Amino acid sequence: MADLERLSINQVTMRERWSLAEAISGLARHDIRGIAVWRDKLGELGVDEAARRLRGEGMTVTAFCVGGLLGVMDDTSFQERLDDNRRVIDQAAVIQAECVMMVAGGLPEGSRDLTSIRERCLEGLDALMPYAKQAGVTLALEPLHPMTAASRSCLTTLRQANDWYEQLGGGAELGIAVDVYHVWWDPDLERQISRAKDRIVAFHVSDWLMETVDLRLDRGMMGDGVIDIPHIRALVEKTGYTGLIEVEVFSERNWWQRDPDEAIGIIKQRFSDWV
Amino acid sequence: MADLERLSINQVTMRERWSLAEAISGLARHDIRGIAVWRDKLGELGVDEAARRLRGEGMTVTAFCVGGLLGVMDDTSFQERLDDNRRVIDQAAVIQAECVMMVAGGLPEGSRDLTSIRERCLEGLDALMPYAKQAGVTLALEPLHPMTAASRSCLTTLRQANDWYEQLGGGAELGIAVDVYHVWWDPDLERQISRAKDRIVAFHVSDWLMETVDLRLDRGMMGDGVIDIPHIRALVEKTGYTGLIEVEVFSERNWWQRDPDEAIGIIKQRFSDWV
Repeated sequence: MADLERLSINQVTMRERWSLAEAISGLARHDIRGIAVWRDKLGELGVDEAARRLRGEGMTVTAFCVGGLLGVMDDTSFQERLDDNRRVIDQAAVIQAECVMMVAGGLPEGSRDLTSIRERCLEGLDALMPYAKQAGVTLALEPLHPMTAASRSCLTTLRQANDWYEQLGGGAELGIAVDVYHVWWDPDLERQISRAKDRIVAFHVSDWLMETVDLRLDRGMMGDGVIDIPHIRALVEKTGYTGLIEVEVFSERNWWQRDPDEAIGIIKQRFSDWV
Repeated sequence: MADLERLSINQVTMRERWSLAEAISGLARHDIRGIAVWRDKLGELGVDEAARRLRGEGMTVTAFCVGGLLGVMDDTSFQERLDDNRRVIDQAAVIQAECVMMVAGGLPEGSRDLTSIRERCLEGLDALMPYAKQAGVTLALEPLHPMTAASRSCLTTLRQANDWYEQLGGGAELGIAVDVYHVWWDPDLERQISRAKDRIVAFHVSDWLMETVDLRLDRGMMGDGVIDIPHIRALVEKTGYTGLIEVEVFSERNWWQRDPDEAIGIIKQRFSDWV
């Protein structure tokens, strides 16, 4: 079970039951030293106190969630969104997050123009990169599953993330996140993971349930679904990725209902058996 | 409204209320001369009687649904599946369907091996092509939305359909179906539609609802969602496609509950306004 040193858990997995303070001490109690932090939860504790506790427990913050959401056409709102992303970057710097998870954003109300929205996202990322660089923060481009294209992410494939990375010119302030839930179906997966060599800054695991009942909040625990996680992990590690592996389970009907201590016990077992 | 000559309606859109016989006479009553026929509905009438009525009303059968479902690893079952597909091809020939809609199939129970399943599908298609050729039937490769990859279709992108088409050697017995619902999110869409020139044998429309509540049975009517249908239609027609345009709406909570005559009236209007 030595591999458990690689385990990080995204706090969203326990979000209904635990505050950030409880998540930090809870994970530490289970000997887990990796966590991804959500912004709404950070607010509960304040960024400085959160940073103090995370450091105190020796936690690696594998991600700060979320930045981005740049699918806005109105110029004033777009500037506000950029300003808000700068605050996200500031907070990520204070808690020493390894990256900000950038969710591109979907279509604004009334729009059907994916092409323009994608250009807008690129424009926004380009505008944020110098700020991130100065703050020493990495923005992680995370392609989400195509079923989220309308509501949450016009960035839908790893190929597109690689294209964006190259168009934006790369650099330490930019990276790519690979989440098995979002990319497992992709016939182009092997080639695009290989192409993402040295760009991968985060690797997320969960599982796809054969009978998925919700487009956002019905992920499975590793082993309960159909994703060949070890295969994808091997592809990612072949690129040289040696970072933590983050378990992120959005699950309204199952895991969010469970006692977090019970859930974490199961996660540790499943991580050893199925990742 | 001259464009209504291009309209075909997939009978699945009225499936809860109308038998095949009712669908044929109902569409004719609304002056619509294109229909896609489902195999379970064909059984109600018998293939010869169905063919007689379709001819009698001057119906173009834009598709026979569905063949394929080749995601089977057990050899005996695989041969049975091929035999069943040969019966589908025979039926399609009798009703003079322009193509058989080939749904690849998802993962068999217990499998996580998408790569092997994809190879199996190719093997099956390769085995069926001579039979289809002899019958004068076209097998349409239809990539389905990636959210169906586990349960229904390991063929998830137009790029993959184009790759398969080329690997299989093409020919009149093979084609590609473009359904806006399945492909609208794809950043590679424009290039892959262009690449599919002369391969496109079917074009389907419906809409993606911003608040989609089901992974299979919650499609929207054109105009109710976020897909830029005229844009995709223009891309498809730029390749030279002049065939009918098929409306196919799986909608358990809305359109399947409606009176078909009412629904068809709305479809005609929406087709003129939003396609």
